[in-house]
Amino acid sequence: VSLTSPADLLLGIDIGATKIAAGIAAGDGRIRDRLVVPTPRHDPDRLVEEVAALVERLRRGAAGPAAIGVGACGRVKTASGEVNTSLALGWRHPVALRARLAARTGCPVFLDNDVNAGALGEHRWGAARDLADVVYVSVGTGIGAGILIGGRLYRGAGGAAGEVGHMVVDADGPPCPCGNRGCLEVLASGQAVGATASAAIAGGAASPALEALARDGTAITARDVFAAASGGDAYARGLVQRTGEWLAVAVVNLVNLFDPQRVVLGGGLTHTGDLLVAAVRDALGRRAGWLATDPKVLVPAALGPDTGVAGAAAVALDALRTQA
Amino acid sequence: VSLTSPADLLLGIDIGATKIAAGIAAGDGRIRDRLVVPTPRHDPDRLVEEVAALVERLRRGAAGPAAIGVGACGRVKTASGEVNTSLALGWRHPVALRARLAARTGCPVFLDNDVNAGALGEHRWGAARDLADVVYVSVGTGIGAGILIGGRLYRGAGGAAGEVGHMVVDADGPPCPCGNRGCLEVLASGQAVGATASAAIAGGAASPALEALARDGTAITARDVFAAASGGDAYARGLVQRTGEWLAVAVVNLVNLFDPQRVVLGGGLTHTGDLLVAAVRDALGRRAGWLATDPKVLVPAALGPDTGVAGAAAVALDALRTQA
Repeated sequence: VSLTSPADLLLGIDIGATKIAAGIAAGDGRIRDRLVVPTPRHDPDRLVEEVAALVERLRRGAAGPAAIGVGACGRVKTASGEVNTSLALGWRHPVALRARLAARTGCPVFLDNDVNAGALGEHRWGAARDLADVVYVSVGTGIGAGILIGGRLYRGAGGAAGEVGHMVVDADGPPCPCGNRGCLEVLASGQAVGATASAAIAGGAASPALEALARDGTAITARDVFAAASGGDAYARGLVQRTGEWLAVAVVNLVNLFDPQRVVLGGGLTHTGDLLVAAVRDALGRRAGWLATDPKVLVPAALGPDTGVAGAAAVALDALRTQA
Repeated sequence: VSLTSPADLLLGIDIGATKIAAGIAAGDGRIRDRLVVPTPRHDPDRLVEEVAALVERLRRGAAGPAAIGVGACGRVKTASGEVNTSLALGWRHPVALRARLAARTGCPVFLDNDVNAGALGEHRWGAARDLADVVYVSVGTGIGAGILIGGRLYRGAGGAAGEVGHMVVDADGPPCPCGNRGCLEVLASGQAVGATASAAIAGGAASPALEALARDGTAITARDVFAAASGGDAYARGLVQRTGEWLAVAVVNLVNLFDPQRVVLGGGLTHTGDLLVAAVRDALGRRAGWLATDPKVLVPAALGPDTGVAGAAAVALDALRTQA
């Protein structure tokens, strides 16, 4: 893929629970012509139409694109190109997303889950460029990981590897919808941070910034918590510190199991400034000094908010490379 | 290696903290002519002499063996054939064990750490035969894992992958010598089980079987706890259950991260009957029903007490295969 003529364009489509982001990837991973539309949940037909419309807008009548990479939040079977189930999209049955998008757009389509896509994007263009053994952890609404071993995505025997959100870090911790207790995702995800703050404010915790939101009847989100922490709110800063501590435990566990060259931390919660990465580093210093002194071990994702779209494009490039 | 003439013999040497076990491996992994001597700790020179003497006794003047495989408890650099450090052996400095044993015996020697050796043995002859993606967890004095990905040992970027003993499962748990808190090894290793029981009895816990030992001034070991549990001692049974629960958390975490075809549970604590595996299965049922119903996921090591020696022989076979 030389990316020099319109027919060589590479599109990335990032399908999240709330929005679909799309764009054209340049050869260095930079994204242009970004488009964002709300995600039609519970409705695969409408989602396919929305994505097809985005593709049409991006290619503006040109013959391309050469390929469309899609990252979707959910359990993806890459071999068959299906989204098996997606709680986030409200899909309870398998959807042959790759085949349907290919038929609708007339272009080659490649599909993976959004976190694997992020890992591929960081590996090709970002903080893990050219490294063999890398764990990419995405902390957003949920928490997941994309694992690169020998420079290739490691998917596990059934395609379910990297479910770091369900790594137990507090065996007697709060229950998780998965049936277990103390999973990382119920302690340190964006959803957990928002829920923890909401419950604390309702319970009388002192936080001028967040109390004001709660009085408005607005649900408190992780974004609010990080904004309040940036503004100096003591409760919010404490919650960011605790979130960083849980994530530090996860990072140490991943290093002890995978001994990677790098752990890359990305996802929505890292796009709100460097508070979270700083909190993780701080906790690493207390828990694993041997790790904390190695600045290479934990690095923030380099593609930032473009990780999703660039990662989706990287899925297509990776698939084309494998085919070649 | 055809293993048909004396010169084709394959020896396995398992160097543990308390004993060195050695034997001749048949082509099916069965071990004959087992020999066991105490480990001379803190003294690499004497250890080399002890191993050389074992090799001499096993080959009885024959021209072989074709190769000697060695599994050693400690941090092993397989590329250079060194034991980097070994707390268990009391070695604080690197020991060029492979080169020294090769020079002393005149045979090709291959070295890995004992847990990786166990994983290779189970993969070649045991409970993980011919499977691609496997995690072998050894629960003995300490806890470690050998990880097979695509049928090959995965060592990580710096050779330190599989340190499952330092996976945190209880973020506010007891301190670990590694500097962290709540590591699996301080909760569920043989050493932890013995120490927990000793402290509990000293603190007045009711356990007729273990109290008798404590009165004798004998240090309570994990073996004592499992024997007491087998005999129906309620305190000991509870401790085995708790140990199984910690290990179940570890198994779920490993499955969520690696999605392996199989998790194999071996090591000294599994050689005392099936109490521990039963306790792990029991806790899996409560924490991860989706896993507990798949009998393939958690299986006991098939080589049992021979895992160490057979695993060491598998290290040699694996190395010969890679060279060929």
